[in-house]
Amino acid sequence: MPPVRQPSCGEDDDAVGRNDVTQTRTRLISVEEGFIIPEVVDELRRLAGGVPSMKSGPIAGPFMPKLLDIGAGRIAEMDADGVDIQILSLSAPGVQKFDPDTALSLARLANDSLSGAIKAHPDRFAGLAVAPPQAPAEAAKELERAVTKLGLKGLIVNSHTGDEYLDDPKFCPLLEAVEALGVPLYIHPREPGAGLWDGLMAMTGFTVGWAYAVETGTHALRMIAAGVFERFPKLQIVLGHLGEGIPFMLQRIDNRYPFEIGVTGRTPLPRKPSEYFRTNFTVATSGMNFAAPMRAAIDILGADRIMFAADHPMEDQKAVVEEYLAIPLTDAERRQISELTARRVFKIAV
Amino acid sequence: MPPVRQPSCGEDDDAVGRNDVTQTRTRLISVEEGFIIPEVVDELRRLAGGVPSMKSGPIAGPFMPKLLDIGAGRIAEMDADGVDIQILSLSAPGVQKFDPDTALSLARLANDSLSGAIKAHPDRFAGLAVAPPQAPAEAAKELERAVTKLGLKGLIVNSHTGDEYLDDPKFCPLLEAVEALGVPLYIHPREPGAGLWDGLMAMTGFTVGWAYAVETGTHALRMIAAGVFERFPKLQIVLGHLGEGIPFMLQRIDNRYPFEIGVTGRTPLPRKPSEYFRTNFTVATSGMNFAAPMRAAIDILGADRIMFAADHPMEDQKAVVEEYLAIPLTDAERRQISELTARRVFKIAV
Repeated sequence: MPPVRQPSCGEDDDAVGRNDVTQTRTRLISVEEGFIIPEVVDELRRLAGGVPSMKSGPIAGPFMPKLLDIGAGRIAEMDADGVDIQILSLSAPGVQKFDPDTALSLARLANDSLSGAIKAHPDRFAGLAVAPPQAPAEAAKELERAVTKLGLKGLIVNSHTGDEYLDDPKFCPLLEAVEALGVPLYIHPREPGAGLWDGLMAMTGFTVGWAYAVETGTHALRMIAAGVFERFPKLQIVLGHLGEGIPFMLQRIDNRYPFEIGVTGRTPLPRKPSEYFRTNFTVATSGMNFAAPMRAAIDILGADRIMFAADHPMEDQKAVVEEYLAIPLTDAERRQISELTARRVFKIAV
Repeated sequence: MPPVRQPSCGEDDDAVGRNDVTQTRTRLISVEEGFIIPEVVDELRRLAGGVPSMKSGPIAGPFMPKLLDIGAGRIAEMDADGVDIQILSLSAPGVQKFDPDTALSLARLANDSLSGAIKAHPDRFAGLAVAPPQAPAEAAKELERAVTKLGLKGLIVNSHTGDEYLDDPKFCPLLEAVEALGVPLYIHPREPGAGLWDGLMAMTGFTVGWAYAVETGTHALRMIAAGVFERFPKLQIVLGHLGEGIPFMLQRIDNRYPFEIGVTGRTPLPRKPSEYFRTNFTVATSGMNFAAPMRAAIDILGADRIMFAADHPMEDQKAVVEEYLAIPLTDAERRQISELTARRVFKIAV
């Protein structure tokens, strides 16, 4: 568990101790934590023809035992590493590579399985639903079931689905359900879609560190550019990896947008691109628990748009927590990023 | 001209005045400043069939009068805006869209024209050569002429050439010449190559702010991934726009690299990806003169790897200088970024 807060001058040790348990101690909520179920593994293996590759997946082989554990073993690791609550989601690419019927039945299975794990450990786990964007109306219904019946806290989509992105009007029924249910949509990376594949995959070694961010950041910007947040103004998106590079470029994007739109003769969006990013997006620190980009993200977005994630088991949770705790933050920023932003975005009351 | 430094306590006004002229006053050197020559404009228009578009170019229409002026008008603007020295380069896409013969003759013309402007104002202008990567051996010879005979300070390449990147061994003769001449290679953005086009250009309004950075950042990372800096360890690259997003992602790239290389079974590079970026790259602030990304870049790369650029005339030089001077920096950082890094990288002695 995270270190207990020390009493400051004039405070009673006991008072701190009491506050500690009931309200004062900052909980560490980790919001992008993967799991998988055997049925999804089997289907991914079948699709890959038994030959895992970066494109046909899964590449999660070495992580499989930890991905499959959503019980005692995972909780023991959380205790050892200082993580209070994990928000679990089906590991990428989720069910997005399967035919719609298979995807839907595996989504139901995964959501039920996740719900079971949460019911067994309601103070340690929360979870995001998976639903197949390739069947938008059915996905909307499954999301509704997962949120209203199973108590899941949002939806995760692993970037493109069949090389299509959520700015395509075909996905409107799903986005409409997300907005209506008042839950966030976590857009998680996967390998690049066809329109980015050749350019990003011609190099070796930078797929997760660069290509995933380009794929997912581009996805988010496509949604802004297409006016998705004019159509769904309350839609809340979560991006991992401190915003997939977007915060760093946000002011430049704003600066060049009016001229570019002017050249095309199209009608510009009524708000600056950054305004959609600041009001419709929240970012998680997954894979990016480093001081300099964190400080930039705080300066650009504010700590109330940032929340901690370890990306367990893809990253070493213990090392990540240590890196995160070593980042210089004010007490208020620490509490906001460790706990408060996640509580607001995912409506975590435990 | 930039404001004259005020004397501090105990200093003699006259002494400050003298230092000011001879050594103490920080000069503002702006390193990514565009120009064009009429012959290149004509050839770009001919290629575009008279119909400028984002892909067939030029989109620089509104900037044309300022791009064509490399004399008194430009210097008057520099004086008004507080820029001491501009390092000029032929505006993107340079000569990279032309057939090799046309490209070579236009490169010679552009380099001669630039050299003439610099000779007329040697204390206000320096310049980068252009040479056609599509004819690597001839480009190497033209670069040698431009550096040794014309006094130009480096080479500018506008990202891909015919959808090929500088990690392709065919470009070795050009990189070899760059390294041998001890001058930097400025990799400037252009519209995305074929392998990124469909994915990045499906949205409107974020081409310069996002797609250009992805194109150019990917180009730089391809060179690192391919081991270009093992083959040419002294090769120095300059990237604009605070490093095209790479600094923000650099620690994550390092973190994921060993695992990814392990999965492929290939031999990893002998150094961490970030080590090549920190030792073989310098970044300019063009289009990114904003406090938060600047602070992150300083924390990640150090001020001695950062230099000021206004991106005149694509950006409003006066506004950019004001934005830059409003960024909180220590005096040492300001001097480094305004002047000293550029002097070292481009060997500017004036």
